[in-house]
Amino acid sequence: MKGKVYLVGAGPGDPDLLTLKALRLLKSADIVLHDDLVSEGILGLASPKAEIRNVGKRCGAKLVSQTEINFLMTALAESGLNVVRLKSGDPLMFGRGGEEIRALRQAGIEFEIVPGVTAGLAAAAAAQIPLTHRDVSHALVFLTGNSADGRERADWKRLVASGATLAIYMPGRDYEALAARLMDAGVRAETPCACISAASTRDQRIAVTTVGAIPDAPRLVSPSLFIVGEVVALAQTLNDSHVKRSDAPNELSAFLPELRNLMADGEVA
Amino acid sequence: MKGKVYLVGAGPGDPDLLTLKALRLLKSADIVLHDDLVSEGILGLASPKAEIRNVGKRCGAKLVSQTEINFLMTALAESGLNVVRLKSGDPLMFGRGGEEIRALRQAGIEFEIVPGVTAGLAAAAAAQIPLTHRDVSHALVFLTGNSADGRERADWKRLVASGATLAIYMPGRDYEALAARLMDAGVRAETPCACISAASTRDQRIAVTTVGAIPDAPRLVSPSLFIVGEVVALAQTLNDSHVKRSDAPNELSAFLPELRNLMADGEVA
Repeated sequence: MKGKVYLVGAGPGDPDLLTLKALRLLKSADIVLHDDLVSEGILGLASPKAEIRNVGKRCGAKLVSQTEINFLMTALAESGLNVVRLKSGDPLMFGRGGEEIRALRQAGIEFEIVPGVTAGLAAAAAAQIPLTHRDVSHALVFLTGNSADGRERADWKRLVASGATLAIYMPGRDYEALAARLMDAGVRAETPCACISAASTRDQRIAVTTVGAIPDAPRLVSPSLFIVGEVVALAQTLNDSHVKRSDAPNELSAFLPELRNLMADGEVA
Repeated sequence: MKGKVYLVGAGPGDPDLLTLKALRLLKSADIVLHDDLVSEGILGLASPKAEIRNVGKRCGAKLVSQTEINFLMTALAESGLNVVRLKSGDPLMFGRGGEEIRALRQAGIEFEIVPGVTAGLAAAAAAQIPLTHRDVSHALVFLTGNSADGRERADWKRLVASGATLAIYMPGRDYEALAARLMDAGVRAETPCACISAASTRDQRIAVTTVGAIPDAPRLVSPSLFIVGEVVALAQTLNDSHVKRSDAPNELSAFLPELRNLMADGEVA
């Protein structure tokens, strides 16, 4: 019997932001093919019998080509294994989910897509930025800053002119270029923006600034993203700081026993 | 001692798409103030000691005003209770999260925002639509179709001209008007689009059509959303059908014992 492939969103980084479904699938997977950004804390939740393989990129260098990933997924499922293809954030945003879906369809492999919490939403939650607001912004745009091949991608001028809040994934390290590109596209220098690095993790950092002052902002480590728009004026007033984390324990080891106890008490199930 | 307020995303509907953190907070809440769209299956996971109160709208009629919600949250936390303000999807998209944040800050109440899986991502996962694709679309726009007061909200013309994929929340029941508005904004009649109703739940329905043919599409029940753009051509080829649900059990009652067993086996924690 053929196995099945699950394209699963791992969320923004904190294992606590996995979905229950993602956790369950990790527990029952025969093999986990994961992107580079998926944390050890999350991979540690997979079945101890599962093979864990990093098929991501590191420093832009592909460890495994997309063709190889597609081949691996289909061949492993053909051989009867249940495969979790684990992607950071949501599996259908800014990844090559479309190509993986096509490969699975062509090979006649059963598959299922499990959505996840995308990094932009975790970043907004961390910085307390309402992404839309009835008085300020009625639309939200997700786009990427970097294009690997240098081609211009999304039409920034029109997106900016629409008045939507922008969530810019993969902004790159060249903050001068980012600020220039935003202002060329029509963003005013005074427009507030926030850079959020490693949202939801212990390494989370937030810098709130304006678009004109992006070049002077601290370079936060990757993965990071920018939120740009008037709604950022509603962000928490902490700036350039190590924002206080949740008082809730971050470690799965701390809260799973609690969950187990709750279930043992018969409150659930 | 004052309590704390958690603005929590409940995800798109399936309890299986709650985050671990959301589940944990529901288990320890003293009171849950929830939107109307949050399902019984999710509310049933709250602590049996918690008071559960619907503060949402039904058929457009507010049960509780925003001012009352803000007052409730702050007063309950002032009195020492832990409050979960549970919002469908993600708490910072298309809700009044910004106003709730402001009220909590003004009252000096500690609060935390817990992101969730937004309905647009669950809808795309259900219909197998990659929301971005390096050959087709490099940006994704979330916007709403209905505006309660009839004012034009987001600038559809510019958003459409940008070439981004559109995810239209709250599209309304007037499909003629929706199709006309999209085409007025520059979308070609042949552009593929999908309507996804009750994504991730047992009632999930998907209709794939084109923008010009939206008026002829079956009226799917609320909550629904439209995904519009060339990427929809990559959707699964099922049309106007009751799409097969996951082979995984949907009910929390079915998978929590499995999780409990895994944890009891010492594989986790």
